[in-house]
Amino acid sequence: MTKQTADFSSRALSVRVEDPFWSPYIQLVKDVVIPYQWDALNDLIEGAAPSCAIRNFRIAAGEEQGSFSGMVFQDSDLYKWIEAVGFILEAQPDPELEQVADDVIELLAKAQQPDGYLNTYFTVKEPDSRWTNLAECHELYCAGHLIEAGVAYFQSTGKRRLLDVCCRFADYVDTVFGNEPDKLQGYDGHQEIELALMKLYEVTGEARYLKLSQFFLDERGKQPGFYLQEYRRRGNKVHFPELDIAHDLKYSQAHIPVRQQETAVGHAVRLVYMCTGMAHVAAVTKDEGLIEACRKLWSNIVRKQMYVTGAIGAMAYGEAFTVDYDLPSDTIYGETCASIGLIFFARRMLELEPRSEYAHVLERALYNTVLSGMAKDGKHFFYVNPLEVYPKANPMNKIYEHVKLQRQQWFGCSCCPPNIARLLASLNRYVYTFKENTLYAHLYIGGEARVDLGGQYVTIGQSSGYTEDGRVRFEVQTDQETASFALALRIPEWCRTVQYRVNNVACHPPDEVVDGYARILRDWRSGDTVELQFEMRVHSVAGHPLIRQTAGKIALQRGPFLYCMEEVDNGSNLHLLQITSDKAFQVEYDPHLLGGLHKIVASSVRTEIPSEEDGLYFSDTQWPSSPVQATFIPYYAWGNRGVGEMRVWVNETGIPSVK
Amino acid sequence: MTKQTADFSSRALSVRVEDPFWSPYIQLVKDVVIPYQWDALNDLIEGAAPSCAIRNFRIAAGEEQGSFSGMVFQDSDLYKWIEAVGFILEAQPDPELEQVADDVIELLAKAQQPDGYLNTYFTVKEPDSRWTNLAECHELYCAGHLIEAGVAYFQSTGKRRLLDVCCRFADYVDTVFGNEPDKLQGYDGHQEIELALMKLYEVTGEARYLKLSQFFLDERGKQPGFYLQEYRRRGNKVHFPELDIAHDLKYSQAHIPVRQQETAVGHAVRLVYMCTGMAHVAAVTKDEGLIEACRKLWSNIVRKQMYVTGAIGAMAYGEAFTVDYDLPSDTIYGETCASIGLIFFARRMLELEPRSEYAHVLERALYNTVLSGMAKDGKHFFYVNPLEVYPKANPMNKIYEHVKLQRQQWFGCSCCPPNIARLLASLNRYVYTFKENTLYAHLYIGGEARVDLGGQYVTIGQSSGYTEDGRVRFEVQTDQETASFALALRIPEWCRTVQYRVNNVACHPPDEVVDGYARILRDWRSGDTVELQFEMRVHSVAGHPLIRQTAGKIALQRGPFLYCMEEVDNGSNLHLLQITSDKAFQVEYDPHLLGGLHKIVASSVRTEIPSEEDGLYFSDTQWPSSPVQATFIPYYAWGNRGVGEMRVWVNETGIPSVK
Repeated sequence: MTKQTADFSSRALSVRVEDPFWSPYIQLVKDVVIPYQWDALNDLIEGAAPSCAIRNFRIAAGEEQGSFSGMVFQDSDLYKWIEAVGFILEAQPDPELEQVADDVIELLAKAQQPDGYLNTYFTVKEPDSRWTNLAECHELYCAGHLIEAGVAYFQSTGKRRLLDVCCRFADYVDTVFGNEPDKLQGYDGHQEIELALMKLYEVTGEARYLKLSQFFLDERGKQPGFYLQEYRRRGNKVHFPELDIAHDLKYSQAHIPVRQQETAVGHAVRLVYMCTGMAHVAAVTKDEGLIEACRKLWSNIVRKQMYVTGAIGAMAYGEAFTVDYDLPSDTIYGETCASIGLIFFARRMLELEPRSEYAHVLERALYNTVLSGMAKDGKHFFYVNPLEVYPKANPMNKIYEHVKLQRQQWFGCSCCPPNIARLLASLNRYVYTFKENTLYAHLYIGGEARVDLGGQYVTIGQSSGYTEDGRVRFEVQTDQETASFALALRIPEWCRTVQYRVNNVACHPPDEVVDGYARILRDWRSGDTVELQFEMRVHSVAGHPLIRQTAGKIALQRGPFLYCMEEVDNGSNLHLLQITSDKAFQVEYDPHLLGGLHKIVASSVRTEIPSEEDGLYFSDTQWPSSPVQATFIPYYAWGNRGVGEMRVWVNETGIPSVK
Repeated sequence: MTKQTADFSSRALSVRVEDPFWSPYIQLVKDVVIPYQWDALNDLIEGAAPSCAIRNFRIAAGEEQGSFSGMVFQDSDLYKWIEAVGFILEAQPDPELEQVADDVIELLAKAQQPDGYLNTYFTVKEPDSRWTNLAECHELYCAGHLIEAGVAYFQSTGKRRLLDVCCRFADYVDTVFGNEPDKLQGYDGHQEIELALMKLYEVTGEARYLKLSQFFLDERGKQPGFYLQEYRRRGNKVHFPELDIAHDLKYSQAHIPVRQQETAVGHAVRLVYMCTGMAHVAAVTKDEGLIEACRKLWSNIVRKQMYVTGAIGAMAYGEAFTVDYDLPSDTIYGETCASIGLIFFARRMLELEPRSEYAHVLERALYNTVLSGMAKDGKHFFYVNPLEVYPKANPMNKIYEHVKLQRQQWFGCSCCPPNIARLLASLNRYVYTFKENTLYAHLYIGGEARVDLGGQYVTIGQSSGYTEDGRVRFEVQTDQETASFALALRIPEWCRTVQYRVNNVACHPPDEVVDGYARILRDWRSGDTVELQFEMRVHSVAGHPLIRQTAGKIALQRGPFLYCMEEVDNGSNLHLLQITSDKAFQVEYDPHLLGGLHKIVASSVRTEIPSEEDGLYFSDTQWPSSPVQATFIPYYAWGNRGVGEMRVWVNETGIPSVK
């Protein structure tokens, strides 16, 4: 079967990951996460909240009697699982897994209604209420995840069965929504359909899907608002009474048209999914207004509202952004899905314009928050990713109610675990992009890329010690005798010194640095090599002075990893430890620690605790301290050794330099 | 009419306040607060939430048709107002005000039911549901406030009308509750009746009221729990669904018997009201178990869970304590009523055992949180008393939802404003206590005390510059030629050096220091004087190292006042200011600032803000700083000059001393 693809860069470029750090994760997704989540979707995990996702489809397909269970968007968990399977099958054929997926795809097809509609909540529970509560009920959100699954499964297996389900549904949606007077001028309460239709457009070449994506984006935020109209039409019925989605328009970024939005507000995942769709449309249409809106929202997120770990969403209420520079470490939301969405957005921006700042953020979110979201065992997950926990207070003070101290088996709203699975399974799509005759290496993840650079097919092998010793090696294979192209290598923002060797000859500085990429343009021959040595020393990171929560504190970083202190290594009351200003850091590899980790040991002092009788407040007191060595581990690895305190931002002693 | 009083110390001691700092407040209570609150109770304040308190009584008395409005405990606001009027009339007769009070007392009497029951919510709204929801519906709480009002009004005016209403109600309550099998073995969800019955006992000498107070205290926390029994009896009906009072027994300290409680948990006001009753019973009965429980709870509150301002209750949810050393400055609850309750508790402990730590805390709460609770105009109030506000984030981040940036006119639940009024109106009762032949001066508030010290009547005049220059002068008048007694003068915890002069002769050190009081025992003659000079230098205050929220920070204190920085004096982003370790403080009196205040000006540095384009996180960066003078004003005066940032705990530069 011929794959129908438009000129879609990720298909003119194919990448296989083989990396000492990442391959075990991808293997874990295949061997553990996907089977585990399959069990979860089938309600087979003991002690975990039942998903009912597959049961809902069986009921909708008429294979089982019963009523709908779970969240209104429960279908999407299964869609994300199928999408992850699609990505995994692309790299590693597995007929048994493919058969499981094919079978469940048949179930979906059976649950699809004759007109193309597919949503188990409405089909089973509210068949007469289709499209009456877009603001709250995620119909188009679920449709979007279905489409993403269909596209991924088609791209990896070449099978059209699910893609056809998607197209039928999308075609039906196109008859319901649009500018025409007989259609609904509405949009979903949770953005997702926009980015999904763009994928469907690219894989099918159907301009109708592009147009529909544009419609949903441009309709959002128009006044008078759609949510209020439909709210009144359905008699003021509300699905999530604890929120006020129909009126709180900022929550789903429906307060003003998307092109006028300059500040990240509301639900973080919704925003970055929306931006991903906007950037994708902008890349295809070269719509300058949309490009500018993407840049402004990007800039606000990453320059004003992002945690040092790449987490976003400072507030539990509404899982939302708050305001510039308000980044509490302990009451943070920092949903795993939000950082994944930020990665989607970054990747689309890289396709739009290869600038290293997008890849810097992509790396920051990936190596820190996303990895933190899953335990080493592939069976436990964080939804919320705090930068500081204090187990004595966390269970007692309700401002921490949303923060779990340990990764959980599953969640009632379990969007994050399958999101991690599909991201890791598709990691090959984030390593490179190309533009004309330049191949951009955004991530230093080992493996092989095959790419068509203006008609010249080349294969680029990468071996990477990026997470360990900072050594990365590229080897070029050209199909012709030579190939004239540029290799553009991102200079990580954490790295002050890079040594370059081309064909074993030191070459420093490189030809030119463009938008944060060292660009090596030459007539390449098979066997040509480029070696990079990134300086891996430990950095102390300071937050922007306007972040009041990080004032007087530093974080430690080595390579792409932010570090944290844990109670198990440092005793309790981590706030008593202060890094001394001489900043003497030692890096020690511990092969026994969580499968092998580089620890940082830092010269510190520890404030001594007075006796309990001494009181609570003290006049003119200087607390005595003792020198100690503080141990830091990579942030993503925290919480794997039982419940205990953790903190990323640690107090620093020292006098600021006075001018 | 003869006053019927037991040997109640506050009556064998009478005190009149005449003080340059406090008299204007008391006058404000009389001239503004009481009339303003009278208008509020009558729903006459434009733009404020209507109280309906008096309207409810008119409906209950059959004078008006309508339905009950307001909180289930709305009656208590009027009772607290009458109590405040009683206290004010004690110092300053005012026939017009007394007539208003007499009239409203007639209304209460008319609303009282034939059996003695008095509660407008149940009489008007749920007449068949009396005593069915003690956990949530505050019937005995309201009864307690009625009794406090009746006692105060009787003590000041000698009029028994309201006291008789109280006795009829208390006698009726005594027929409903008790250990006898035909009575309810229950207790109120909000402690208050216990402390009120003790006042009624002391003013009437009726042992029945003491016994009933003991019953309520000892019944609390018995298992199986009373709340659950009544919850089932009323068919699981719930009044406050957002809480879970029937099951969350810690919320109202009903989880274990009060004598076993060692840690302050749950709703802060409930706990300190309970402790006030316990300490009062203990003082009367010398019940060692109860005394020990009071000491333990006191110790936990003030050594582990109290803010430097004397605020208590770290969490908005449940207006509650959280856990030892968890004292966030910005998400704090710190209800004004809770600090008032802490003052009640402290005063009862002082009667039990005169130890200066009780008076230290009383002073801390009074001069800081209680004063902060009311604006200079007497018409605006804080319910929540934060130690840090950041107006850019406060309205956006829901963790701050309960924190108001400016004092409010009134509240839907308006317990705090009349509580401030009654405390300030009764301030004369907190200055001294006596025991045998010793008069203890706990507070340095000017005025005159007349006391019977073992049959010797003496009059002690105090003139106080305690809040200004630290000079305090006592002058003794004896009824006989001489009087042999001890004057015990509290040494404030903030004061390192006190100079004493007796009859103009320096006398240092004083005879002896007992439990934190400088004790001067002699045969006093009329005209004898004692002069104190408290050193008024500025102190830097450090929190206990286990308070993670104050690590690396200091607060400034001068005399009894904690200080804070405000944006109006220091510009925005107060977290950028750091006090330098040389701690050079200047005190400047500003006669134009809010009626005249001592400011503190501190040598500081201010971190400079990089340009917006520079990013959010920075490697190996030392921020440049510029020297600046930071201005501090007393904490209680914050928020009187518009909305702006405020913080008590400020960052400190400096290297900890390493041993």
